[in-house]
Formats: sequence, structure tokens, C-alpha cells
Amino acid sequence: TRFAYVRNFELPDPLLPDTYIVLRIDGHSFHRQFSEEHELAKPNDVRALKLMDEAASSVMEMFTDITLAFGESDEFSFLFKKSTNVYNRRNAKILTTVVSQFTSSYVFNWAKHFPGVSLKYPPSFDGRIVLYPTEKVVRDYFSWRQADTHINNLYNTAFWALVQEGKQTTTQAHEALRGTNSAQKNQLLFERFGINYNDVPERMRKGSVIVREEARDLPLSVASFVDGCGGDKVVKEEDTLEVKDKGKGRKRASTRVTVLHCDLIRDEFWDERPYILSE
Amino acid sequence: TRFAYVRNFELPDPLLPDTYIVLRIDGHSFHRQFSEEHELAKPNDVRALKLMDEAASSVMEMFTDITLAFGESDEFSFLFKKSTNVYNRRNAKILTTVVSQFTSSYVFNWAKHFPGVSLKYPPSFDGRIVLYPTEKVVRDYFSWRQADTHINNLYNTAFWALVQEGKQTTTQAHEALRGTNSAQKNQLLFERFGINYNDVPERMRKGSVIVREEARDLPLSVASFVDGCGGDKVVKEEDTLEVKDKGKGRKRASTRVTVLHCDLIRDEFWDERPYILSE
Amino acid sequence: TRFAYVRNFELPDPLLPDTYIVLRIDGHSFHRQFSEEHELAKPNDVRALKLMDEAASSVMEMFTDITLAFGESDEFSFLFKKSTNVYNRRNAKILTTVVSQFTSSYVFNWAKHFPGVSLKYPPSFDGRIVLYPTEKVVRDYFSWRQADTHINNLYNTAFWALVQEGKQTTTQAHEALRGTNSAQKNQLLFERFGINYNDVPERMRKGSVIVREEARDLPLSVASFVDGCGGDKVVKEEDTLEVKDKGKGRKRASTRVTVLHCDLIRDEFWDERPYILSE
Amino acid sequence: TRFAYVRNFELPDPLLPDTYIVLRIDGHSFHRQFSEEHELAKPNDVRALKLMDEAASSVMEMFTDITLAFGESDEFSFLFKKSTNVYNRRNAKILTTVVSQFTSSYVFNWAKHFPGVSLKYPPSFDGRIVLYPTEKVVRDYFSWRQADTHINNLYNTAFWALVQEGKQTTTQAHEALRGTNSAQKNQLLFERFGINYNDVPERMRKGSVIVREEARDLPLSVASFVDGCGGDKVVKEEDTLEVKDKGKGRKRASTRVTVLHCDLIRDEFWDERPYILSE
Ligand SMILES: Nc1nc2c(ncn2[C@H]2C[C@H](O)[C@@H](COP(=O)(O)OP(=O)(O)OP(=O)(O)O)O2)c(=O)[nH]1
Ligand SMILES: Nc1nc2c(ncn2[C@H]2C[C@H](O)[C@@H](COP(=O)(O)OP(=O)(O)OP(=O)(O)O)O2)c(=O)[nH]1
Ligand SMILES: Nc1nc2c(ncn2[C@H]2C[C@H](O)[C@@H](COP(=O)(O)OP(=O)(O)OP(=O)(O)O)O2)c(=O)[nH]1
Ligand SMILES: Nc1nc2c(ncn2[C@H]2C[C@H](O)[C@@H](COP(=O)(O)OP(=O)(O)OP(=O)(O)O)O2)c(=O)[nH]1
Ligand SMILES: O=P(O)(O)OP(=O)(O)OP(=O)(O)O
Ligand SMILES: O=P(O)(O)OP(=O)(O)OP(=O)(O)O
Ligand SMILES: O=P(O)(O)OP(=O)(O)OP(=O)(O)O
Ligand SMILES: O=P(O)(O)OP(=O)(O)OP(=O)(O)O
Ligand SMILES: [Mg+2]
Ligand SMILES: [Mg+2]
Ligand SMILES: [Mg+2]
Ligand SMILES: [Mg+2]
Ligand SMILES: [Mg+2]
Ligand SMILES: [Mg+2]
Ligand SMILES: [Mg+2]
Ligand SMILES: [Mg+2]
Ligand SMILES: [Mg+2]
Ligand SMILES: [Mg+2]
Ligand SMILES: [Mg+2]
Ligand SMILES: [Mg+2]
Repeated sequence: TRFAYVRNFELPDPLLPDTYIVLRIDGHSFHRQFSEEHELAKPNDVRALKLMDEAASSVMEMFTDITLAFGESDEFSFLFKKSTNVYNRRNAKILTTVVSQFTSSYVFNWAKHFPGVSLKYPPSFDGRIVLYPTEKVVRDYFSWRQADTHINNLYNTAFWALVQEGKQTTTQAHEALRGTNSAQKNQLLFERFGINYNDVPERMRKGSVIVREEARDLPLSVASFVDGCGGDKVVKEEDTLEVKDKGKGRKRASTRVTVLHCDLIRDEFWDERPYILSE
Repeated sequence: TRFAYVRNFELPDPLLPDTYIVLRIDGHSFHRQFSEEHELAKPNDVRALKLMDEAASSVMEMFTDITLAFGESDEFSFLFKKSTNVYNRRNAKILTTVVSQFTSSYVFNWAKHFPGVSLKYPPSFDGRIVLYPTEKVVRDYFSWRQADTHINNLYNTAFWALVQEGKQTTTQAHEALRGTNSAQKNQLLFERFGINYNDVPERMRKGSVIVREEARDLPLSVASFVDGCGGDKVVKEEDTLEVKDKGKGRKRASTRVTVLHCDLIRDEFWDERPYILSE
Repeated sequence: TRFAYVRNFELPDPLLPDTYIVLRIDGHSFHRQFSEEHELAKPNDVRALKLMDEAASSVMEMFTDITLAFGESDEFSFLFKKSTNVYNRRNAKILTTVVSQFTSSYVFNWAKHFPGVSLKYPPSFDGRIVLYPTEKVVRDYFSWRQADTHINNLYNTAFWALVQEGKQTTTQAHEALRGTNSAQKNQLLFERFGINYNDVPERMRKGSVIVREEARDLPLSVASFVDGCGGDKVVKEEDTLEVKDKGKGRKRASTRVTVLHCDLIRDEFWDERPYILSE
Repeated sequence: TRFAYVRNFELPDPLLPDTYIVLRIDGHSFHRQFSEEHELAKPNDVRALKLMDEAASSVMEMFTDITLAFGESDEFSFLFKKSTNVYNRRNAKILTTVVSQFTSSYVFNWAKHFPGVSLKYPPSFDGRIVLYPTEKVVRDYFSWRQADTHINNLYNTAFWALVQEGKQTTTQAHEALRGTNSAQKNQLLFERFGINYNDVPERMRKGSVIVREEARDLPLSVASFVDGCGGDKVVKEEDTLEVKDKGKGRKRASTRVTVLHCDLIRDEFWDERPYILSE
């Protein structure tokens, strides 16, 4: 038609080849609105975190060129292998499809993780793509996010202990923590509330690390959840998550999307999984 | 932390000021997969179209700088007023938030529009932003989409009449329609199946046009659905849609998101609504 | 060869269609270095300004889709007609070719405008492209530059009068002018130095405006320089500039690149030359 | 002023950090127009090549973050160290300043390299920036250009031998070479014209490789030209080129811009000069 020329205003947006693509998603207004309206537990709501993991797993099932994901709070980061040619590396196409799939899976799976709690309104997420040229800076990116998890969670654990158990106001709690370092927060938790911070579940302290592990005992159509770093722990049926495979995922034989809660700052994590950065 | 430098790789992506932003969303794999797995009626499933309208309305409630939306099939286009400064005109931020909100609302409202039909898997949508510098090309953009609606719907109406009522195979039906023009398809519909194409609901023939109309009889927290172009038709209670207003929408007093099914190619549509392109 | 894949890293950079392209060039380190080493007259050196005009004219001869240029000091701005498809609207290709042609012509024509003065080192210019979607903002762009010319030139005229004739130090001169408005600077010039600012040549007060005028008495291969705004003043042989036409310029019959020194803020300038913004 | 808002349309264009910036310049219409109007020797004109080297050297003097340049025919490529923060990595600023400096130096130094030949018109160059994320692809980029030099020069040497000495028409010469491989061209040159291709000067066969070498016997203000790869050959006074240092170059002590004509495809070149890719 005589209107079709408007198509010419669509400009190409290819991402630089042979460069790591990191895509980060973050919940819109989760601080005040979403967590309050749904009365999420403080500082962490395990149901909410598991729902995030499930949404991220569904993204990894859809995009088999994602080799790693990391999540905490209302955010998730995804790493594509640097040679990926998914959607011809078109920026907006990749970005929107991932954000949409994540959001869709989040809402779709709400009832499963929040039985008896109704979703009050449709939550949304923003997303952005950042390119990283080297292995070092990719590792530093994920270290940045996990260090953030640690700092926030230690603070929040102490903060809510002061408020919930110490009966302080939020203002007083902030005041009490101002200027304290990690050691002091650990000490406060232990001395005043008998909480050994190392006993806080790894999920809270480390966030969620999603990788593709070799499958052992379970069918391919499940993702598994593993406390800590996997190692040779056997995956039990109740740790698994059924994956809606839309049949598009050309999965590498005998790998399975697996959610870990382990340290990815140290070298071991990467040394054991060379495939994450290879190619 | 020593990792925070990775933030520097996030590059700015502002959209050119004072230029119309058009954002188009399109369903991922709706042709084979989504419409088949959910047994959507052919060629159009009113439930699916209304669900699309609802998702688009929720986007318009969230982004009050959107002045117009147009939808058909598995796609929706949104027009922002050219002076908008939403999210400082950051491309990815706007794009992902809209796509996410649309997707979220689509899944969230599924059960309402498809009572008794369960959603089999989380559907996703892609999205893109296109800039248009002039009123003329914005109008041509929307004309392009609505002309596409007409062409596709006439073809599909004839095609499925041949298949469903004419008992032809899909191959035969395509063959029968090859090379025919609009008049011939109209004639075929009328002569062989007694269908007057003009009697096909306007929703199918024109797509969905969403605007902000002045409110008359109804409270602000509902969006209204109007057959045709509105005119002075009174909106009835059953034509309305309750809108989850998250309280962010600084709504212009006494306007309401309204879904129309009318021609936007001709001048009248625009002449009656100067606010769409103004500023 | 097996190396040719590196070509894939060259990414497309098309400019939005149907939008005005403005390209501004500015001399590198003209303040301290270039003007001092070549002992340019202060505040304005007519030889330098005419050399700039000549370099800009050569750009306009090369790019026939440029409809207007404006220059002052060490800078020049070029306006392409909005429908231009030069180099398929590739950003870097257009930008670099214009900057290179300008620079080349500047050095090439140095000796002609600075007889007896040798060029001490090769001067360079930066350049940038800015897109403007509407006529209004294009006009405001050029008004911005010409208002800048006025403000700078009035200041500099007063400043150098104080220094050169008033025998003040540069520090004293800056001090004397701090906080004065235009009227006060005019008054100072007149009362202390007998200078009527309106008698300063229009070239200094208005900058250089280059357009394509209809040819009257002269052959096409010359550009003409006209004091003021042209009007029906006859162009004399000594006001002209021979243009090296490389034979690429598909020139519109009977137009000639013409340098004016006139006000382009008011409407008359544009009303008399509708072709500048048309299409 | 009320016009200053137009500045907001200038959008940021930072280049991805920590990534190699390669900038390639190429002469505009050198094939037909420039080389013919100036009667350049065929297939290579040493004066023209040396002038290119000089222009490139002046760019390297201006931008001390350039660690390598490679030139052939009417083109030159420059490599910035990946950590460079020159002009805050602004794309257009870097690109235009380099292209402008190159062009300016080319015209400025014309008379020195073409004594007795006047420059007929101001030549121009285009330029583009390409980002490369890894050492490997940077090396492949330069190998790509040098392999191109070899292929073109062997072809052109054979072609012009056929035309100039073999008295063939250009059509016949192209015909004679169609489909021949390197060995066959070498053989043809040797058997029909007694030319041992290896005796063709390295400048023609390898192009120009510009690096920063440690200074030995000469003052810093000269660039040196060295046949082959340098090694421990002593630089003679007549191999040098006086460099106009504008005083901006914060030069590393005791290095000097040096033009070589040597193989950069093999590892030795890079192993001997780790600084080119380091950081
Ligand atoms: N109570 C509770 N709150 C959570 C949980 N996970 C995340 N949140 C909330 C607390 C955090 O302040 C907030 C995430 O911080 P953001 O910086 O993303 O803030 P927010 O989403 O409000 O703003 P944004 O729209 O992303 O700019 O989400 C949870 O498990 N329990
Ligand atoms: N049966 C049925 N199908 C529909 C309806 N609305 C949309 N569709 C299907 C038929 C169309 O071929 C398809 C939309 O065309 P697209 O070009 O967007 O194709 P698709 O989504 O498969 O591919 P894509 O992932 O967007 O590249 O959606 C409906 O109401 N009923
Ligand atoms: N004496 C003299 N100086 C001039 C003339 N035209 C321009 N200039 C100098 C004085 C101005 O400060 C300077 C232009 O200002 P810019 O802001 O472009 O400064 P400059 O080129 O030094 O810095 P840049 O490299 O562009 O950031 O050029 C002239 O005709 N005579
Ligand atoms: N005779 C002669 N010609 C040369 C010499 N160096 C370069 N050239 C000419 C021959 C080549 O065809 C031409 C460079 O090829 P290009 O692909 O850059 O072509 P050209 O500059 O004409 O087109 P362009 O404007 O870059 O698209 O320059 C030389 O030393 N002697
Ligand atoms: O999301 P972040 O951490 O980048 O920080 P922000 O303050 O939420 O800013 P943005 O608008 O970029 O999401
Ligand atoms: O969606 P369209 O109509 O632009 O066309 P497409 O063939 O689906 O292509 P794309 O990958 O751009 O969605
Ligand atoms: O040249 P301008 O006026 O944009 O201002 P600047 O301070 O010279 O900055 P830039 O580095 O953008 O040339
Ligand atoms: O210069 P090249 O080799 O990239 O190839 P071209 O055909 O001259 O194309 P361009 O317009 O990109 O200079
Ligand atoms: Mg954020
Ligand atoms: Mg958030
Ligand atoms: Mg967050
Ligand atoms: Mg599509
Ligand atoms: Mg689709
Ligand atoms: Mg579609
Ligand atoms: Mg500047
Ligand atoms: Mg300057
Ligand atoms: Mg300036
Ligand atoms: Mg080229
Ligand atoms: Mg060339
Ligand atoms: Mg070339």
C-alpha cells in the first residue's frame, strides 16, 4: 500500500558481534507498592524469590544461548554466550522478548508460589542490555550483583531484626545501623538477637545462580533447585520444577536448568563451568 | 565496591526530543502455537481480541502520555505525544516497561476473557520503538496498520468461509483466492456464502482504536468499549471495563480510556481529536 | 579471505528519514593556539572569516542537498533538506566527508586569503550531526547560533576596544563588562570610543549566511558574496569566488551559492526562501 | 537565550568502554578523479604513499593513545588502546577530529611530497569507527587490510605490466588475469617481464605500518621511516620526517612514531610489540 513507506523509519539496532550480552530485569515499584500490597515477608519472601527463579528458568528454557543467570530481590541478570546469533543480535527484539517472557511466567506461576494469595494487579519489569567485551568484566558484573546481595541482605536482616524483634521504629533502626560495617552488623545480630548470619539460608545470602548442569537422575523437562553449589548432591524430586517447554528449546542433550545459591565471586565457580564464558 | 565500575558500560539511549514515539508490540508465535493450543476461533476470536484491548488499556492507564493505540490480531501500536518526557525518553526503559505491562495484563486477565479455558503456557510479546517526525507520517503509520487489518481480515474471512463452510482444504482455499482483488472477495463471500462483508463486526474490519474520550456517565475508573466511532452513543454499564489504576496515572480530569472500532484513515477521526497529535 | 569476517563488526548508522540533518563544524583550539600563532586580528579577522566562508561554500558545492549554512568565528553549521538521501543517510559517512571537505578547502585556500602569511601547522575541525524534526526547531537552531554571534561580537568589540584603545588589561576589561547588558555595551562603545555598533560590518554582527540564490549576471561557476541580505543588489565581479566544481554537483539550473550577512532570526529571511525548509 | 533548548537534541554517543577502537579513513574518489587529475604513477605512486604516511603520522602525534596505524592505497586504519578515554570516548568527536587532522596534514604537506605538482582541488576522506572486543579480532582486522594490500598490489603490478610494458589494452589485461591465482601472477610477471615480485619494494607489497618505537639516535621531534621491520637497523637522518608537534602530545619518553613496511600477519610483529594490544 501507499502507506508501507513508514516501515523505513524502523532503524536497525544490531549489537556488536562476539561480545557478551548481559540483560538485566528489575521489578517496577516493588519497594512500596508491590511488596506492600501483597504483604511480602521482610526482608525476604521465599515465595517471591522462588517465583523469580521460576520466571528466570523459563527464560533460560526459551533462550538456550543464555549460559548463566543471577537473581536477587526483584531483579535478574542473564548472560548470553558471546557468539550468540539469536534474533541476529537485534537489541530490541532480544530485550523485549526476554522481558516479556519473564513477566508472563511470573504472572502465570503466581498462584503456584503464592497459594491462597491473589495477585492484586499485573506487575511489570523493566529491562536493559549491557555489552561486556571481556571475561574479566563479565565476572566483575556478576560479582557486583552478588556483592550487592550480600550488602543489602546483611543490612536488611539487621534492620528487620531491630524492627520486628527489637521493637524499634524504622527510623531508629536506620539510625542504629548508620555507619556500621559488616563485622558490626554480624555482631549486633548475634549478640542482640542470637542470629548467626551464616545460618541465614544461602538463598538469601547469595541470591540465585542459574546454570545448565548435566542431568543425572531426572527427566529433562524439569529444572532443579539445589541448595549451595550443587557439588555431587543428589537432586530430589521435590527440588524440581516442571518446565513448560514450548518445544523451541534445542536443548543440549542431558543438561538441565539448575538453580543454585552459591558464591560466584571466587574462581572455583567459573573454573568448574568453563562453558559459561567459552566460545 | 571495586566492581561498581561495570556500571560504566551501561550506555545512554535517549530518544530524539519533540518527535513522535510509536511503540509496536506483537505476539510471539501466535500463528501456529498460541492460537492452536488455545483453539482460538478463526479467523478472529473475539475473546482474544478483547483481551488484547484490555492489556492495551492497562498500558494507556499506566502511561498517560500515550494518546492513541491501535490493535489488530496479535499486535498493538501505541503513540506517545511528541513532547513526552516519560523516563527522560530513555528508549529501553520505555520499551520494556510497556511490553512488560502489556504482557502482565494479558496473562492477568486471561481467565476473565477466557472463562473455562486454561492458559497452557505463558505467552510473550516482542516490541519495538519507531520515531516519526511529522503528523503526516504518524497518520500514515496508523493508516498502514488499519489498511493491513482490512486486507488480512477480508482475506481470512473469505479463506475460512471456503474452508469451514465450503469444505475446501486450506490448499484449495488459498488457490481459490490467489490473485483476487477486494471486490472479488466481497462478491465471493456474498454469492457463495450469503455473507455481506459490511455486516462483519466493525471490531474485525477496523481493529481496535483506543483513545481518551471525555467521560460522560461513568466513573473514571472504567474504560469503555464502543462500537463504531463513539459519536454521541451513550456508554452502557456492560460496555465497560474496570481499570486497575495503580494510582500513578495523573489522569486528565474527566477523560476515560475508550476502545473504538472505527476508521482512522479518513480526516474526521483526527479532526475530532486534535489532542492526539497536538503539542 | 579468512579475515573478511571482521567486516561484520561495522554496524549500520542510518539517520532517521524525513528529518532535518544539521551538521556543525568547529575549529580545534582556535582560541589560544590557532589565532595566536597566526596573529589573527581581534576580535575578528576578516581574512579568517572569508576563508571559513570559502570552505563552507566548497561543502555546499559538493553537497547539493545542503540548503543553508551559517558561520561565525571558527564554526559553521549546515542544513540538509529533510528528504535528502545522500549516502543513504549514513551518519558517519556524511559527517566525515563534510568535515574532511571543509578542512581540505580551508588549508587549500589559506594562501589566497592570507597572502604573505604562512600556515604554521595543519588546523583541524570537529563535527557533529544533530537531527531536528520540525521547521520550528530548525529555525530556532539557526537563531541560536546567530544570537550567539551577536552576543559574542558585541562583547568582544567592547572588550577589545577597552584593551586596544582604552589601554586596559584584559582582566580590567572583563571586570568593566561584567554584568552589563546590551544597551550598556552599546553606550560604552559610543561614549568612550565613538563607535556606533551598528556601523560595525554586518559580517561581524550577523555572521555568514550561505544560501543558493538565483543567478543573475554571473556564470554558474562562481559563488557570490553580498553585504546584507542580497535584495536586488547587483553582484559585482569582485564579490565573487571561483568555485572548484569537481563535476559531481548536480546543481539546480541557475542557482549559485551566495554568502550573505543578514538577519535570519526574523520571518522575512525564511519567507523569501521557502526552498530552504520545503519538502 | 530562549533558543538554547535546541542543544537538547544533541544526543550522547559514547563508545563501549574497554573495547578496541579502530578508525579507518579512505580517500574520496581517488580511483578516477584524484589519481588521474594528479597523474599519479601506476599502480603505486611513492609520493602519494609517503604523503599518506605523513598525514597518518601527524594523527599519531596528535592522539597518543593510538598505538598502531596501517595504510595502503588511499586508506589508513588507526588503533586506539582499549583503555583510551580520549574525548570521553565520544564517537563523533574522535572520528571527526582524526579525519580532519589527517585531511589537513595531507593538504598541508602536499607541496613537500609533490614538488612542482600543484594540487588541483581539495581532496577529501571519509572515516568510520569500528569497535573490536578482543585481541584476536583486532589482529584479524589488520591482517585483513594487509592481505588486501598483497592481493591488490600483485594484481595491479601484473595488470600495469601488461598494459605499460605488454602494450595491452586495459580490457585485454583484465581478461588475461581473470581467474589466475597468486602463483600464476608471480610466474607471469617473472616470465614475461623479468619482474621478481619479491623485489618490488616492501612499501608496495606490505603497506605502511606505523608504530611507536623506542628512540635511539634521533631527536624526538622526528618520525622515522624504516624499510622492512626495523630490527636493529640504524635510522638515518634522511629517513626522517619532522613532526609538527602542537605541544599537546604527552609523548611517552623516548618513543618515536616510526613508519615500517613489514608483515603484521605473523605473530612476531605483535610479540615484539606487546604495548600495542596491552592494557
Ligand atoms: N518485603 C519484601 N520486599 C522485597 C522483596 N524483594 C524485593 N523487595 C522490595 C524491596 C526493595 O526495596 C525493592 C527492590 O528495590 P528497587 O531498587 O528495584 O526498587 P523499586 O522496585 O521500588 O523501584 P524501581 O521501580 O525498580 O525503580 O523490592 C521481598 O522478598 N520482600
Ligand atoms: N485463530 C486465530 N488466530 C489468530 C488470532 N489473532 C491472531 N492470530 C494468529 C494468526 C496470525 O497468523 C498470527 C499473527 O501473525 P504474526 O505475523 O504476528 O505471526 P506469529 O505471531 O506466528 O509470528 P511472530 O512470532 O510474530 O514472528 O496470529 C485470532 O483471533 N484467531
Ligand atoms: N583573534 C581571533 N580569534 C578568533 C577569530 N575567530 C575565532 N577566534 C577564536 C576566538 C574564540 O575564542 C575561538 C572559538 O571558540 P571555541 O569555543 O571554538 O574555542 P576553541 O576553538 O579554542 O576550543 P575547541 O577546540 O573548539 O573546544 O576562536 C578571529 O577572527 N580572530
Ligand atoms: N595511480 C594510482 N592510483 C592510486 C594510488 N593509490 C590509490 N589509488 C587509486 C586506485 C584505487 O582504485 C583507488 C582506491 O580505491 P577506492 O576503493 O578507495 O576507490 P575510490 O577512492 O575511487 O572510491 P571511494 O570514494 O573511496 O568510494 O585509489 C596510487 O598510488 N596510484
Ligand atoms: O535500576 P538501577 O539500579 O539501574 O537504578 P535506578 O535508580 O532504578 O535507575 P533506572 O531508572 O536506570 O532503573
Ligand atoms: O513483525 P514484523 O511485521 O515487523 O515482521 P517480522 O517478519 O515478524 O519481523 P520481526 O523479526 O521484525 O518481528
Ligand atoms: O562545541 P560546543 O559549543 O558544543 O561546546 P564545547 O565545550 O566545545 O564541547 P564539545 O566537546 O562538545 O565540542
Ligand atoms: O570503503 P569500503 O571498502 O567499506 O567499501 P565502499 O564500497 O567504498 O563502501 P562505503 O560507502 O562504506 O565506503
Ligand atoms: Mg532501576
Ligand atoms: Mg525494582
Ligand atoms: Mg531492584
Ligand atoms: Mg514480527
Ligand atoms: Mg506475532
Ligand atoms: Mg502479528
Ligand atoms: Mg566544541
Ligand atoms: Mg573551536
Ligand atoms: Mg567555536
Ligand atoms: Mg569506501
Ligand atoms: Mg577511496
Ligand atoms: Mg580505498
